[in-house]
Amino acid sequence: MTRTLDLAVIAGDGIGPEVVAEGLKVLDAVLAGSDVDVTTTPYELGAARWHATGETLTDEDLAAIAKHEAILLGAVGDPGVPSGVLERGLLLKLRFAFDHFVNLRPSVLYPGVPTPLADPGEVDFVVVREGTEGPYVGNGGAIRVGTPAEVANEVSVNTAYGVERVVRDAFARAQARPRRKLTLVHKHNVLVHAGHLWRRTVEAVATEFPDVTVDYCHVDAATIYLVNDPSRFDVIVTDNLFGDILTDLAAAITGGIGLAASGNVNPTGEFPSMFEPVHGSAPDIAGQQKADPTAAVLSVALLLEHLGLTEQAARIQRAVEGDIAERAGATTTRTTSEIGDALAARVAG
Amino acid sequence: MTRTLDLAVIAGDGIGPEVVAEGLKVLDAVLAGSDVDVTTTPYELGAARWHATGETLTDEDLAAIAKHEAILLGAVGDPGVPSGVLERGLLLKLRFAFDHFVNLRPSVLYPGVPTPLADPGEVDFVVVREGTEGPYVGNGGAIRVGTPAEVANEVSVNTAYGVERVVRDAFARAQARPRRKLTLVHKHNVLVHAGHLWRRTVEAVATEFPDVTVDYCHVDAATIYLVNDPSRFDVIVTDNLFGDILTDLAAAITGGIGLAASGNVNPTGEFPSMFEPVHGSAPDIAGQQKADPTAAVLSVALLLEHLGLTEQAARIQRAVEGDIAERAGATTTRTTSEIGDALAARVAG
Ligand SMILES: CC(C)[C@H](C(=O)O)[C@@H](O)C(=O)O
Ligand SMILES: CC(C)[C@H](C(=O)O)[C@@H](O)C(=O)O
Repeated sequence: MTRTLDLAVIAGDGIGPEVVAEGLKVLDAVLAGSDVDVTTTPYELGAARWHATGETLTDEDLAAIAKHEAILLGAVGDPGVPSGVLERGLLLKLRFAFDHFVNLRPSVLYPGVPTPLADPGEVDFVVVREGTEGPYVGNGGAIRVGTPAEVANEVSVNTAYGVERVVRDAFARAQARPRRKLTLVHKHNVLVHAGHLWRRTVEAVATEFPDVTVDYCHVDAATIYLVNDPSRFDVIVTDNLFGDILTDLAAAITGGIGLAASGNVNPTGEFPSMFEPVHGSAPDIAGQQKADPTAAVLSVALLLEHLGLTEQAARIQRAVEGDIAERAGATTTRTTSEIGDALAARVAG
Repeated sequence: MTRTLDLAVIAGDGIGPEVVAEGLKVLDAVLAGSDVDVTTTPYELGAARWHATGETLTDEDLAAIAKHEAILLGAVGDPGVPSGVLERGLLLKLRFAFDHFVNLRPSVLYPGVPTPLADPGEVDFVVVREGTEGPYVGNGGAIRVGTPAEVANEVSVNTAYGVERVVRDAFARAQARPRRKLTLVHKHNVLVHAGHLWRRTVEAVATEFPDVTVDYCHVDAATIYLVNDPSRFDVIVTDNLFGDILTDLAAAITGGIGLAASGNVNPTGEFPSMFEPVHGSAPDIAGQQKADPTAAVLSVALLLEHLGLTEQAARIQRAVEGDIAERAGATTTRTTSEIGDALAARVAG
């Protein structure tokens, strides 16, 4: 009996197509000889499409993508597109339309990876970033724009419905990990309304997970811990904006965004989940085979894990670990596709 | 002709009184034999007062403090006070009532200071954090609190008036520094209304400072630079919340919040400016002479600089540099007052 993975692929702009190609190469390799087939459907979305047509993501695009089992995304954007157009009109639109309320961002410091920290210790945590609320909802506006009397507001919207479901997801993930620790990161001493909702929710859901240790820190203090004592973290649950900030910092201390993968997950399965590297389209190095495809490859691993193919996901992870360990000693720089080839060879092995 | 500095002193809670005592000790020492006198008026504000009276900051307190030339604050808060009470009711109330729109936070990595970074390079930048707007305005609210239908909103308010004045201040500071570089940090690809106001304002004010190089980065990317390449920053201008987050990280990479000083500045002079260490009241080590008073002492230096006593401010800074260099080789731990004594001896010298 053959299972077919039906993926939508949004390669996007800049280095997106290059790194996605390697992700798919490794995906093919890890599934070769198994009873799982892959079909991929490319979607031309991003800066190129916007320049050509003025479209970011049409209702037809959305409806078509919704039919797939999962989405692999490379990166979107180029300097010619005004700020916010593709972010709001494409990337965030996908996250919101497909109710990706769990934005999953693991941070693991693999042995041999260069880190800016002198003494990082063991780093292995995952940030569960809320993906459909907070200051990302687009609920802002401005009056008297361009005049000295301009007022520009941004509203962070937080609901019990939205907070509870992501907090419960984070608790479940914490429970499934050896250390069983959950840290809520917020700023409830200033953002008292949203902060207290988050705090109360964590307290309430904690009663369902008595074996999970619960911890809290303010977002400012969390950045200190991330550089001074990152091993204290196991699972972090936080809002959309704090999660955005913390996961870039987390990526930086664990070898950079070239290695950071993420999943935009709809745990109910009502909509396809989307997996993407944390990095952007890096137009300055696009098309030069200079990009590290590891984050895209690890995003494929997250995708497989999400779809229940945990053995294959683990093989990709081990391949990356092995490749990174070998890299540490090497002096030559490999091209994007050479790294993909090496990883494909390892997972096939 | 004698000049008298008339200071309000809010020693506060926890380690606040200990570190403020050392700050005042060094202040006395640096002014000894000069034509500048100091008078200090203590204000009993903070957790102790709140526990005793339920008051945080009365109109009478505010009116009395307003008459002083500047404020030195230690730290406020203890675990027995509900989150937000002293933050909103005292600390932020002072910042807002006295229109402290420039929240000034220098980050210098002094030679010999332990840093979590393996290879920090030269770090010497200042964050100009907006202090009277953004998500700190307290313009949020919640409905159906405690029910599954709860909605909790937080509004970030940004005005052309508020953004322009802090951006102009930051440009002036950048112009007065050797590197003359200003980096705006925001998230204008998501917070499009506020972000574009900030961006347009920086572009407009930049024309008045043609010799200042202008740069932009998203707040998430800024955290990466702070650990990978902190020497790229000279002056950072940013909003209230981003500034809160970035300055804790900045403190961490430059030796910790035990060394981080800050000024809540009202540049017009209409209200007294307030100087305080970035650290909190640290109740766990309070009263044990374990706290490092250096941040409080450096806050005194910022205070003197703000009041035009730049020579004395520089002497304190040099004393701290010397003390830190000496500390690096030492194996014994000094008490709070021993560090204060050492700094006082150096500035008197
Ligand atoms: C591109 C941007 C909208 C996005 C975000 O802020 O979520 C990115 O920074 C990320 O973290 O995926
Ligand atoms: C205590 C808190 C309200 C305060 C802030 O968020 O501004 C502190 O973190 C700071 O940075 O001075």
